[in-house]
Amino acid sequence: MDAIRFKVKFLPHEREITVDDGETLIHAAMEAGVHINASCGGEGVCGKCRVLIEEGDVAEGISEKLSKEDIEKGYRLACKSLIKNDLVVRIPVESTIDASVLNLQSTPRKTAHIKQMDLGELKEKGLFTPPVEKKYLELPEPSIQDNLPDVSRMVNYLKLNHDEHRLYVTLSVIQKIPDIIRQQNFKITATLARPVHQGGRTRIINVQPGDTTDRNFAIAIDIGTTTINGQILDLKSGEVLSEHGEFNGQISYGEDVISRIVYAEKAGGLKKLQDVVIKTINTVIDSIVKQSGIDSEEISTITLAGNTTMTQLMLGVNPRYIRRSPYVPASTIYPPIRAIDLGMNVKEHVTALIYPQVSSYVGGDIVSGVMGSGMYRTEELTLFMDIGTNAEIVIGNKDWLACAACSAGPAFEGGGIKLGMRASKGAIEDFSLDPVTLEPMIVTIGKVRPKGICGSGLISMVATMFEMGVIDNRGKFNRDLNSNRIREVDGVYEFVLAWKDETQIDRDVVISEIDIENLIRAKGAVYSGCMTLLSEVGMTMNNIERIILAGGFGSYVDLEKAMIIGLLPETDAGKVTFVGNGSLMGAKMSSLTNRIRRDVVEVTKKMTNFELSETPSFMDNYMAALFLPHTDMKMFPKLKERLDARMSARRGVLQ
Amino acid sequence: MDAIRFKVKFLPHEREITVDDGETLIHAAMEAGVHINASCGGEGVCGKCRVLIEEGDVAEGISEKLSKEDIEKGYRLACKSLIKNDLVVRIPVESTIDASVLNLQSTPRKTAHIKQMDLGELKEKGLFTPPVEKKYLELPEPSIQDNLPDVSRMVNYLKLNHDEHRLYVTLSVIQKIPDIIRQQNFKITATLARPVHQGGRTRIINVQPGDTTDRNFAIAIDIGTTTINGQILDLKSGEVLSEHGEFNGQISYGEDVISRIVYAEKAGGLKKLQDVVIKTINTVIDSIVKQSGIDSEEISTITLAGNTTMTQLMLGVNPRYIRRSPYVPASTIYPPIRAIDLGMNVKEHVTALIYPQVSSYVGGDIVSGVMGSGMYRTEELTLFMDIGTNAEIVIGNKDWLACAACSAGPAFEGGGIKLGMRASKGAIEDFSLDPVTLEPMIVTIGKVRPKGICGSGLISMVATMFEMGVIDNRGKFNRDLNSNRIREVDGVYEFVLAWKDETQIDRDVVISEIDIENLIRAKGAVYSGCMTLLSEVGMTMNNIERIILAGGFGSYVDLEKAMIIGLLPETDAGKVTFVGNGSLMGAKMSSLTNRIRRDVVEVTKKMTNFELSETPSFMDNYMAALFLPHTDMKMFPKLKERLDARMSARRGVLQ
Repeated sequence: MDAIRFKVKFLPHEREITVDDGETLIHAAMEAGVHINASCGGEGVCGKCRVLIEEGDVAEGISEKLSKEDIEKGYRLACKSLIKNDLVVRIPVESTIDASVLNLQSTPRKTAHIKQMDLGELKEKGLFTPPVEKKYLELPEPSIQDNLPDVSRMVNYLKLNHDEHRLYVTLSVIQKIPDIIRQQNFKITATLARPVHQGGRTRIINVQPGDTTDRNFAIAIDIGTTTINGQILDLKSGEVLSEHGEFNGQISYGEDVISRIVYAEKAGGLKKLQDVVIKTINTVIDSIVKQSGIDSEEISTITLAGNTTMTQLMLGVNPRYIRRSPYVPASTIYPPIRAIDLGMNVKEHVTALIYPQVSSYVGGDIVSGVMGSGMYRTEELTLFMDIGTNAEIVIGNKDWLACAACSAGPAFEGGGIKLGMRASKGAIEDFSLDPVTLEPMIVTIGKVRPKGICGSGLISMVATMFEMGVIDNRGKFNRDLNSNRIREVDGVYEFVLAWKDETQIDRDVVISEIDIENLIRAKGAVYSGCMTLLSEVGMTMNNIERIILAGGFGSYVDLEKAMIIGLLPETDAGKVTFVGNGSLMGAKMSSLTNRIRRDVVEVTKKMTNFELSETPSFMDNYMAALFLPHTDMKMFPKLKERLDARMSARRGVLQ
Repeated sequence: MDAIRFKVKFLPHEREITVDDGETLIHAAMEAGVHINASCGGEGVCGKCRVLIEEGDVAEGISEKLSKEDIEKGYRLACKSLIKNDLVVRIPVESTIDASVLNLQSTPRKTAHIKQMDLGELKEKGLFTPPVEKKYLELPEPSIQDNLPDVSRMVNYLKLNHDEHRLYVTLSVIQKIPDIIRQQNFKITATLARPVHQGGRTRIINVQPGDTTDRNFAIAIDIGTTTINGQILDLKSGEVLSEHGEFNGQISYGEDVISRIVYAEKAGGLKKLQDVVIKTINTVIDSIVKQSGIDSEEISTITLAGNTTMTQLMLGVNPRYIRRSPYVPASTIYPPIRAIDLGMNVKEHVTALIYPQVSSYVGGDIVSGVMGSGMYRTEELTLFMDIGTNAEIVIGNKDWLACAACSAGPAFEGGGIKLGMRASKGAIEDFSLDPVTLEPMIVTIGKVRPKGICGSGLISMVATMFEMGVIDNRGKFNRDLNSNRIREVDGVYEFVLAWKDETQIDRDVVISEIDIENLIRAKGAVYSGCMTLLSEVGMTMNNIERIILAGGFGSYVDLEKAMIIGLLPETDAGKVTFVGNGSLMGAKMSSLTNRIRRDVVEVTKKMTNFELSETPSFMDNYMAALFLPHTDMKMFPKLKERLDARMSARRGVLQ
């Protein structure tokens, strides 16, 4: 069922937007690209975001910052106003200058359209064929004329009645069958695990008394460096029954993969990290099993996807050579492994399927995303990106796939930024600027007073300031601007986003030229990675028909803003889709359709890895990308047009 | 090198025999079918076995039982005389009657010719292809232009340089490879395990630094109900490096399979029996590894064969239904299992191959014997028998195989016999009788005074007494014979084999009619098993071209004697071969040639099991076999002829 949504029209901008029931007006304005001065992040204390409700009515929105007269006229604080019906809202314009800069406002916020796997489509195409199936068997009872072994009785029945051949029976089934088979008069349910590779044998991994065919579940796990997410899937309906995420316990031993590898090289370190990640996985498993109310015995399979380092650590494989040139991982493909042998809290019959890796820095999480997004099955030439501390890039379609990884550094996660922080409560996540007064509009996560800046906020700020001419293409503040928000501290220019008394911290929240430089380096690495990989395969961005973003970062980033700073190549935002946690999605899809599991080995072999650091053109591309958006403005023609237009408009206004 | 052997000629019988250096004269006489009175089992105390050395000379043989005069004339005690050169020996004949009964003497002892697997033949036929091979690889070192994962580097090299395809790499290899591969500059030895079934994949189960191709060993184990035997095999040369047997620790929980099953049904019983047998297996492994001086790391594979109950107990599979009608085992085929998962004291990379079973009472030990003897590959129609408490019978050739088991009871192992005992020190193992005086010749194991009778001794006695007319075809003593050795005690007739003062025990060693009856029942069961199985497949003994005996019992039994009592069908003794411990031999052959391992599943499927107890004709056959040798003397034509001849000779002598 879709959420209830309402229309909000902003005047005098004449911009209309549709938002969810209960959304705040300030968020709606930000989405619409309508600037309202606001410094306190949405906590209602600065009182700057005064708007006039002309049609409809909002809930709340009243504050002591508003006079009784204003309230009677219909003024409300945008940050406190909850949208409960269709509205027409007027932003107060104090001067003609203000009015004339309306067309300098930001474009409406555009995040990528979410394109998740469609169960209905799978079913329609006959691809909803879970790799583990249950079959109910009413076996003939043995007699002295027919005293076949219990296993043969089951296998023969499956052969004759279910056309199942070349079956392989595990020791655990042989151990169970004599008692199980006699529990309900030779009526049993057999669990059949399909082979991963073509030509392989179907394995009988479990037997249960009676008919349990409607109780067949799978677990999908994404082993993230930071977070481990898991889902329980009903293999009968295909539905997700429960989902849970936990911080990866390895965080205590290092924030990123490199520091984990360093720890693993210490005596006992590898074992420790393996134990810790298995412990987290078990916490996730226990939680989703409990949430879904199923019995652990009913879980038939588990699929895990993670990057190369996370995978090797989970499996107890020394990751030492991943971080040393020539960056050699232990393996690409891992055999199916009995989950209990890895210490997982599931029953003995459960086999763990591990997503294969391409290289040391293009791991199972990316392969999983490629599988889950379906890009390996389409004609469309696709650019797949998972942007984080490391950015992984895959280009290709059903015929070929090329991939590469580049180190972006921690800027997108708030690292290396003076007041940077992860996307958590108090982080400025969105930003707009009055082009004349340079008065900011900031929105924080949790609608509290700001205490720092997260990745998406940073991109928003740099893009807005660049487009407004507040910073130049090298990220330097325009020294000519006359604003007390721009200042020089210890020889470094910075912009005050919120004054000390509007923040949660004991000082002003600022963004400095050093912060901007770090962001430019990060986005430069990603962009030059794309360009280098494209040129290695003899292509340009013009050939790309679709962009897929994966990972937490991709879900929130404002696409236009990302294109303004040159993080993403300039393209129609409609071509960009978002797959969410690609790793989890791939693990989930593998659990629902065996086709994916069969394809994945071939796809992995097809994915040609390029070591960008060793590609001569990478450094040239990188140097050229250390500008906003890029040295070569021909690659950003729409932005160039907009900048030129604004420049002349601004000249008109300011003349 | 062959042992030194000498010729011994016995007079006046004119029988010549070739024996090993150091053999005693009394053994040689027994082998030759020459009777010498002897009651003390070979200890030299009865002094009855006085013989005259006419040519050559013996070592020892002198005793206070001989007068100085006798010694000077060349008389010696046969039981104390060691053969050190060619001899002519005269047995003193005290009367013409004695002389005229010479042709009533026994036939020379005939045991089955040993036909063991021939390594040379395997090599000649190109079948010496161990299922686990080592390959030495000098891999190219990785560089940034070639930074394939370690596993891919190895696999690609094997593909290109050794034509190895579709390789499967175990997790344990992936865990080891990053460090191992760099230990000797990318020079490694990979251990490849061939698939058991056609179309399967070769597995890479181990990697070692440098070249270790000449250190590749296998373990073969026979899990006997009583004894567990093991061998270390050198997979490079095919030689057996060491061998050791231990009593199965389960003996404390029951002597035979039925009592073991009963124990396994108690709470915790199955686990206990599993632990105990694994403990014994580990003792055997530790001993043979130590003996052979190899490193445990160098063991690449282990193959185990045992009967159905032993196999299920070792694998922790409830054997409860094996002993209950309709006698259903859990499985015939077992998957390859990681040996450490079974608790075996070998390294992680070792896979345990378990010989498949046919039915509850035709187990892996028999399948192993069928494989090891090669009967499944020949045109010749073969009868394979493993005689013990249970007798297993297989009939067939390369085209078809039929099998059955029957319970013979413990008589062949000395069970159910008043003074019966296992074949150990003090057991009468061989027997002859003076047809006139009824004075016995007894030989014991260990050449000590007798304390009981083992299976082979029992057969020898019953056959001899029957042929001499001392017992009739129902096993009853001839009441007309005038001998103090035949007496009635508490209504039961018995024959005194050794008087109290000639024994180790405080009484006479005797054989009673009840003992004989028990033996007749045992042999009747085995013989009727053969007949029933033959008739089920529409054959008679005339169709059988070869008999193979397996097991400890088969190695020592006097074939002619076994045919006289009707344990074995009457046939040319030259057609009978002995394979020794068929189970161990099969396990060994599987370790030396993968062909056997591939064939075994097909052979097992081909082996049609007959439940004799449920075959109507079995009881008729059994009743008919409860005579010496059988009701139907037409089945024993040679014996009939001999009996007839002797009867008239005896009449002549005694008239």
